Amino acid sequence: MSTGKHKLAQPDPGDVPKAVINRLSLYLRELQHLLRSGKTTISSSQLGRMLGFTDAQVRKDLTCFGHFGHPGIGYRCEELVAAIRRILGTDRVWTVALFGVGNLGRALLGYKGFSAKGFQIVAAFDEDPRKAGATIDGIRVHPMDRLDEVIANQRIQLAMITVPAAAAQHVADTAIKAGVVGVVNFAPVTLTVPQEISLVGVDLATELEQISFSVANREKS
Amino acid sequence: MSTGKHKLAQPDPGDVPKAVINRLSLYLRELQHLLRSGKTTISSSQLGRMLGFTDAQVRKDLTCFGHFGHPGIGYRCEELVAAIRRILGTDRVWTVALFGVGNLGRALLGYKGFSAKGFQIVAAFDEDPRKAGATIDGIRVHPMDRLDEVIANQRIQLAMITVPAAAAQHVADTAIKAGVVGVVNFAPVTLTVPQEISLVGVDLATELEQISFSVANREKS
Repeated sequence: MSTGKHKLAQPDPGDVPKAVINRLSLYLRELQHLLRSGKTTISSSQLGRMLGFTDAQVRKDLTCFGHFGHPGIGYRCEELVAAIRRILGTDRVWTVALFGVGNLGRALLGYKGFSAKGFQIVAAFDEDPRKAGATIDGIRVHPMDRLDEVIANQRIQLAMITVPAAAAQHVADTAIKAGVVGVVNFAPVTLTVPQEISLVGVDLATELEQISFSVANREKS
Repeated sequence: MSTGKHKLAQPDPGDVPKAVINRLSLYLRELQHLLRSGKTTISSSQLGRMLGFTDAQVRKDLTCFGHFGHPGIGYRCEELVAAIRRILGTDRVWTVALFGVGNLGRALLGYKGFSAKGFQIVAAFDEDPRKAGATIDGIRVHPMDRLDEVIANQRIQLAMITVPAAAAQHVADTAIKAGVVGVVNFAPVTLTVPQEISLVGVDLATELEQISFSVANREKS
């Protein structure tokens, strides 16, 4: 397959704005839709139009990582899907442990979108002894004191944290000590992690602030 | 209170990058923590340090909206909290309806972070007749065919969509026709809305792609 030979530029991950990565995710989603509907090539302006971006934006985002366009053809969907998955690191399977089996934790355990992108939740943890031992959506819930053992045995790479804010830093510290290299934090608190650990904070209310900002400022103008 | 008199600059909401709004949300969260712990003033470099940003970044973000610093004092926490809440439009209560009471919908109905920021989920909808009529976390679940009536009666402004991808566009169209002015879409599909409607797409797997990108590119370098 030609897609495997495509050489990617490798910018320092710290130099790539979060917004670019977000847009790559969107491009990937649209390209996968296109492939499923039988389309094999697309231009930057068509791809941009589908998502409300300019063609220049699309080209600029992709140019950070290599040259993907073909003169007179545009992008080959399959090739670009493979390249974006390699850029995003979703061309492999990531093992994930979820910490905190409350409402949100349960929702995430059942969220289909993760495994489709290569994120496999293989274990869950909860400090409530009544939850530990249960199996939810096929995933075993362990007590917190088995953390070291489970993370080592199942070679867990990423931690997804949905415990209450007050417990989140301690859980992150413990998971990192046990070997995870990336933390996705859903608790509404800012965590501190060592420099070599990747951290993404997800605050669901922040997404609503985007909406209120947008609606409120439309009203004013 | 002096905070009420503070005049805000009003840039076009379309001109303000999403990343700036995200950072304002983070500043707000930290400032509220500080206020609760009794701190009344803070410098841009202290605020930046707490979040891993430079002081120049903090000042630049805030300068878009007005002049908030006081020479020799820094920012007054209470004043800046009030200003950011006005900028973000969270100095008021927003009424929200949730569409789709699956796992994620249930988690969002119980998510404490929304009402703390002024987002009040006042109604839920589900097309499953077995769910309609139930009350979850104090919120009534209605059948979809009561949508027009409930949105009008409860003056619902925002729609939060957690239905399956295939149903999301139809639900958004219906809610907008009934009067909502903002849509927060959790379904993994890109929606199209009229220009005067605000739309934010939340793809939970996208957050994981940030992490895999970061970890994968650290490994390469």
